[in-house]
Amino acid sequence: MSQLSRFSVPDSISDLPEDIQKSMLAVQEKAGFIPNVFLMLAHRPAEFRAFFAYHDALMERESPTLSLAEREMIVVAMSAQHECLYCVVAHGALLRIYSKQPHLSDQIAINYRTAPITDKQRMMLDFTYYLAIECGVLTDEWCAKLQEQGFSMDDIWDMGAIASFFGLSNRLVSMAGTPPNDEFYLLGRIPRSK
Amino acid sequence: MSQLSRFSVPDSISDLPEDIQKSMLAVQEKAGFIPNVFLMLAHRPAEFRAFFAYHDALMERESPTLSLAEREMIVVAMSAQHECLYCVVAHGALLRIYSKQPHLSDQIAINYRTAPITDKQRMMLDFTYYLAIECGVLTDEWCAKLQEQGFSMDDIWDMGAIASFFGLSNRLVSMAGTPPNDEFYLLGRIPRSK
Amino acid sequence: MSQLSRFSVPDSISDLPEDIQKSMLAVQEKAGFIPNVFLMLAHRPAEFRAFFAYHDALMERESPTLSLAEREMIVVAMSAQHECLYCVVAHGALLRIYSKQPHLSDQIAINYRTAPITDKQRMMLDFTYYLAIECGVLTDEWCAKLQEQGFSMDDIWDMGAIASFFGLSNRLVSMAGTPPNDEFYLLGRIPRSK
Amino acid sequence: MSQLSRFSVPDSISDLPEDIQKSMLAVQEKAGFIPNVFLMLAHRPAEFRAFFAYHDALMERESPTLSLAEREMIVVAMSAQHECLYCVVAHGALLRIYSKQPHLSDQIAINYRTAPITDKQRMMLDFTYYLAIECGVLTDEWCAKLQEQGFSMDDIWDMGAIASFFGLSNRLVSMAGTPPNDEFYLLGRIPRSK
Amino acid sequence: MSQLSRFSVPDSISDLPEDIQKSMLAVQEKAGFIPNVFLMLAHRPAEFRAFFAYHDALMERESPTLSLAEREMIVVAMSAQHECLYCVVAHGALLRIYSKQPHLSDQIAINYRTAPITDKQRMMLDFTYYLAIECGVLTDEWCAKLQEQGFSMDDIWDMGAIASFFGLSNRLVSMAGTPPNDEFYLLGRIPRSK
Amino acid sequence: MSQLSRFSVPDSISDLPEDIQKSMLAVQEKAGFIPNVFLMLAHRPAEFRAFFAYHDALMERESPTLSLAEREMIVVAMSAQHECLYCVVAHGALLRIYSKQPHLSDQIAINYRTAPITDKQRMMLDFTYYLAIECGVLTDEWCAKLQEQGFSMDDIWDMGAIASFFGLSNRLVSMAGTPPNDEFYLLGRIPRSK
Repeated sequence: MSQLSRFSVPDSISDLPEDIQKSMLAVQEKAGFIPNVFLMLAHRPAEFRAFFAYHDALMERESPTLSLAEREMIVVAMSAQHECLYCVVAHGALLRIYSKQPHLSDQIAINYRTAPITDKQRMMLDFTYYLAIECGVLTDEWCAKLQEQGFSMDDIWDMGAIASFFGLSNRLVSMAGTPPNDEFYLLGRIPRSK
Repeated sequence: MSQLSRFSVPDSISDLPEDIQKSMLAVQEKAGFIPNVFLMLAHRPAEFRAFFAYHDALMERESPTLSLAEREMIVVAMSAQHECLYCVVAHGALLRIYSKQPHLSDQIAINYRTAPITDKQRMMLDFTYYLAIECGVLTDEWCAKLQEQGFSMDDIWDMGAIASFFGLSNRLVSMAGTPPNDEFYLLGRIPRSK
Repeated sequence: MSQLSRFSVPDSISDLPEDIQKSMLAVQEKAGFIPNVFLMLAHRPAEFRAFFAYHDALMERESPTLSLAEREMIVVAMSAQHECLYCVVAHGALLRIYSKQPHLSDQIAINYRTAPITDKQRMMLDFTYYLAIECGVLTDEWCAKLQEQGFSMDDIWDMGAIASFFGLSNRLVSMAGTPPNDEFYLLGRIPRSK
Repeated sequence: MSQLSRFSVPDSISDLPEDIQKSMLAVQEKAGFIPNVFLMLAHRPAEFRAFFAYHDALMERESPTLSLAEREMIVVAMSAQHECLYCVVAHGALLRIYSKQPHLSDQIAINYRTAPITDKQRMMLDFTYYLAIECGVLTDEWCAKLQEQGFSMDDIWDMGAIASFFGLSNRLVSMAGTPPNDEFYLLGRIPRSK
Repeated sequence: MSQLSRFSVPDSISDLPEDIQKSMLAVQEKAGFIPNVFLMLAHRPAEFRAFFAYHDALMERESPTLSLAEREMIVVAMSAQHECLYCVVAHGALLRIYSKQPHLSDQIAINYRTAPITDKQRMMLDFTYYLAIECGVLTDEWCAKLQEQGFSMDDIWDMGAIASFFGLSNRLVSMAGTPPNDEFYLLGRIPRSK
Repeated sequence: MSQLSRFSVPDSISDLPEDIQKSMLAVQEKAGFIPNVFLMLAHRPAEFRAFFAYHDALMERESPTLSLAEREMIVVAMSAQHECLYCVVAHGALLRIYSKQPHLSDQIAINYRTAPITDKQRMMLDFTYYLAIECGVLTDEWCAKLQEQGFSMDDIWDMGAIASFFGLSNRLVSMAGTPPNDEFYLLGRIPRSK
């Protein structure tokens, strides 16, 4: 079995603070397994709590103009730029599930500029690329272009913050060397039979 | 007066959730003013809380082998790489205060490779550069080199996590266009008279 | 249905020169479908013939020290660097089949430096990266290092020539905009039941 | 005498397959010498045949809107980007001969953006730079711009394929370390006396 | 005390050629101290003379459309790109003094694209960035854009020449390892009391 | 006839200051023509004087361990990196003449790493590349390596200063758009008959 992290991981979940145990059991209930990044972060309870609070605030915000699938597109595209296997594979699974498009994650991870997405989605990814990879600053031009496509200022904040937050996530994984759980690789690739 | 943020800022602190008000008053009590980044993040209370919880967990951890000044060195060096004026100026002030060296922030911001720091500190900054700017992964070689210099695995985590967290911080500022408070520019440059 | 190429594609295989028809039928017999790149190249019969003759000479050469799976590793790693979806997906399928490791293609495409491969294979990919992406020249040092790992001069030629040939292939696809056949995405991901 | 290749070269042409001998004698008849790249590739007859078949298909195609000299411009400009001495010197000689401009090869090799060429030729080189060096994909905008300049879709294919093919050629030479024949350096530099 | 240079520095000013002594005493009279770069260059009298003659010709030319402060902006912005502490700190002091803006040097050194300067000044810095950092050539488009902003051809020459000259200066300092005099760090940061 | 400069050039040499006239006539006497860069710089007499004083101090210094040909190698290699046609062609001519090797300039301009030079010369060019192109600082390691090869500290200064000075020269030419004189292209390529 491959190593979960270069840093310490809990021998047993029952040794962890109760709220952290609870969040692990909740995700296990939903997904059928505990994603490795939960175990990797558990050695630092305060950071664990801040990380997932931040994550949920950004990834679960309701917006009629920025869907859950689009949020995952940003994660997959940016994590691929940072060459972070964990995030590409884990969030690639979520993107396949949310979008119901079994090839979309691979298309975005390998080259988002050739992926079959809308112009609006392409601009969203171009903006996050500019901000997170090229260290650009939000200019009046970018604001105008994004708003013309129908994004609100709150959407713009979300897009930029998601891309930036996963820059943090990608680097924590690069430091810990945490691999994705095997389950993620196949999720959403095969249509579920009824 | 220059604009605080491209996104909404509170008209009055008294409109904000109580815990956020409290943290603003606490920093004002200590510094004499409210750093602009507090006001910039206030439009998203959940993210505000997660951001500062994460920040404090990383920047205030006690370690005999990674001082508060060294943590600020990482912030200044990485923020300069990302060309983030706010973080260079605000954390430059903290670095001058903690290190009691009035020129150190400028030396590290402009070129940390020529700054008058120890070999251990130089390796610390090289590692964070490699991880956060070059998107490197923590290898056995890096682990060994850093441990030989006297860093613990907890220090290594802190160094990497601080560099990565400020990558997030730098990009939020680049998005909001938030300038540093004027007070930061001069803090720690002039020896206090008794 | 998505467009096969920006350039002309045959309306019917029966209009093509006999030898080209034959090679298409042969691959269809074996794979169950005609890979799109065959149809994309058919508008230039002389180039079609040269391309596949070159391809087969490099990819099918027998060597006890450079397996078919390792040849495909090079293709996947280099095509990912060139952000060529077609080649990553099509040759990713072949790599899964040859290696019998269903996750290996994703691991190499996203970041070959963190993939679970041998040191010898890692050096093979480092060399092709150096030659094909960084435009390096083969030096005495590289020759010595590669030979110490057990590669023959013929293997070195193959590695470099495969990486270089797929640089050509990647760019032809980028020009034509040819997508991978849907079948490739899932090939080799699921263990065949007996 | 400098070494022809890191890989094996034929002791005598007469040991080679007949068709390869023939092609060497043909070029010797025409040029007065055998270009070193023929000898370098001879250790792999199948690749030799595919390479020159591909080369001739691309470099000798007749088009009223893409001349032989313009094809050589692409080779010189791209080979200079890849820092391949052999291809710059050998194809620089051909460009001087075809264009009858003794300084054009140096002008394009050192900086094609300042060379005294037409706007159409400049766009041709910008396109091949974008495709072959920056790994860009052919977009609607590029198609439109190139067609407005008078290039056909077949010309666009040729330009992209030539640039990509010489990317392969450049890297084979970098691997073998093959120097240009001395004769190439001066060809076309001095007006022939009648 | 930190070392002034890796190369020889004069034990005493009185050993130097008379004209060089004179220029040192003149700057000392004006600034209150001898900037270290004068001592660093003194081991090569002919180069010393040429360097300062060139410097003065560029930095002291009178132009109604390119002020002394704007000339220093170019120096600070370009020296920051080259990570040259000496030039950023020394010319940052001059910029603060000429502009009477105590924060401007830090704002330009860290990210000139977010500094509170005019559009004309922004274009000036973009042009020098393009020419000196990206090795661009002056095109008709650049000429037109700069002249529309009110710059004369003489201003354009000055801007480009200043940026290029300090590229030389930055590298000489990088070679000698010369630190800025302590006095520079604080100059112009604090309003002078009458 | 191609344009000599985007900036003003003298209608007649006789309008220029006497010392500048004299230096032009001196070079014409020696070379048979006035190199275009003399005419290009003449619109700024003070800069003209400083430029050539600096140039001569660096390029004509006598050293048993850094020959005139080696100085020109640096110029050709660095000017090629900056894609400056004028300097590559003009100093390429000088290099051919000084070295008596008619192919050396092309070999160094296209890829100095594959040129047939000594290890000492290769290190000299690696150092100037590191300093002038990569903006590196002179470290103890570099000092030691260069001195082991037999270079004095004065040679090191010369190498670095030559590379830096021609960075200035290259950019002035890029700004003025000055082409090399036709005569330079062929100089030193053909053995002089007795």
